[in-house]
Amino acid sequence: MKSNTAYMTFHTERRRELIRITEEVQAAVDESRVQEGLALVSAMHITAGVWVNDDEPGIHEDTLEWLDKIAPPSWQAPANDVAAALLPDGGDYRHHRGGEDNGDAHLKNLLVHQQAVLPITGGRLDLGPWQQVFYCEFDGRRDKRLVIKVIGE
Amino acid sequence: MKSNTAYMTFHTERRRELIRITEEVQAAVDESRVQEGLALVSAMHITAGVWVNDDEPGIHEDTLEWLDKIAPPSWQAPANDVAAALLPDGGDYRHHRGGEDNGDAHLKNLLVHQQAVLPITGGRLDLGPWQQVFYCEFDGRRDKRLVIKVIGE
Amino acid sequence: MKSNTAYMTFHTERRRELIRITEEVQAAVDESRVQEGLALVSAMHITAGVWVNDDEPGIHEDTLEWLDKIAPPSWQAPANDVAAALLPDGGDYRHHRGGEDNGDAHLKNLLVHQQAVLPITGGRLDLGPWQQVFYCEFDGRRDKRLVIKVIGE
Repeated sequence: MKSNTAYMTFHTERRRELIRITEEVQAAVDESRVQEGLALVSAMHITAGVWVNDDEPGIHEDTLEWLDKIAPPSWQAPANDVAAALLPDGGDYRHHRGGEDNGDAHLKNLLVHQQAVLPITGGRLDLGPWQQVFYCEFDGRRDKRLVIKVIGE
Repeated sequence: MKSNTAYMTFHTERRRELIRITEEVQAAVDESRVQEGLALVSAMHITAGVWVNDDEPGIHEDTLEWLDKIAPPSWQAPANDVAAALLPDGGDYRHHRGGEDNGDAHLKNLLVHQQAVLPITGGRLDLGPWQQVFYCEFDGRRDKRLVIKVIGE
Repeated sequence: MKSNTAYMTFHTERRRELIRITEEVQAAVDESRVQEGLALVSAMHITAGVWVNDDEPGIHEDTLEWLDKIAPPSWQAPANDVAAALLPDGGDYRHHRGGEDNGDAHLKNLLVHQQAVLPITGGRLDLGPWQQVFYCEFDGRRDKRLVIKVIGE
């Protein structure tokens, strides 16, 4: 069995961003020399995620708007009445009692998940024609890490 | 290490369908002769997913109805006021500016995820008594592919 | 390739609970003697999940409250109007026609997912500083099982 471990660090300008990393994941696969196997791509933080979808700016804007309605932040006014009703009763996250303000980012982590597992066939990520891999930042503007673990033969 | 790669193609009659594929995944495991390992089951499209749950028609209808409320399509009237409020502000997905009408299916992909990883023990999928594997189509009526990658020993 | 399979059984007092299992997953990794590889942690039930997040009680309460709004039970009054609107039209799950009352728990399984795949580096779970692994029970008070499958070298 062969394996390879690579780490990436992100420091986004904005609080929420989607950053394409397909090429970096493929580079970690290349380095491993694995021909048949799996690549785990996993955020090492609890306020971030990994999503496989289209590299189309409209989808990314749609998704970030929608995530703010479904898992609303409390540091800005709710997007609408539905977002307000999905905030914790009382209007703020219990998590914020410790001084944090990123309670929504933990729920966005739940929705998007911290990881994706990708198939490797013939030394290449075996993705469909529009599948790209994204690191999803929900509480950025500070260093955050991601791990890529490749195993196979 | 042993490995096996199998592909499936779906062409559903309806836009959204859940299709049981547990037996096909087990067949890919059988073919691999893997006794201990992992099976990755992954949609190769960004408007589809893989879910492990019960093969009970009521759950499937409940789930498809609920997904249409949480991640509402814009090509039909919203199911109710909450679904309307979860549509993008302005009422339609930015993604549709390019002529598409499946913006909701990308969000359903996010909720359900494109993949499941299943344990293999003694050559069998090591699932609980009610766990079945489903390909989840959210924008069907055309050819869509799925990959099964088995690795282990 | 080395591998190890461990099972855990839970029997919660409450219907919904988050139970930390990071140490048990590490113990299964230790037992496997795998230095580089992957650990799959997967609920064997369709009304439970596995989540990687912070071991902070506020987040757990926030999350359970939020899950009851997004995927509302029908055996108690809806938390608010939004939760009521996310129930199936008619007010109850089709799944309950068979005598069950846990339709919401299947949707919570969809949101949280039954599994996480964790990287193993140098014999240790390669997690970020706040990442802990939780078994998420959504329909407890009876025996439920989870499987840990470690593979690598």
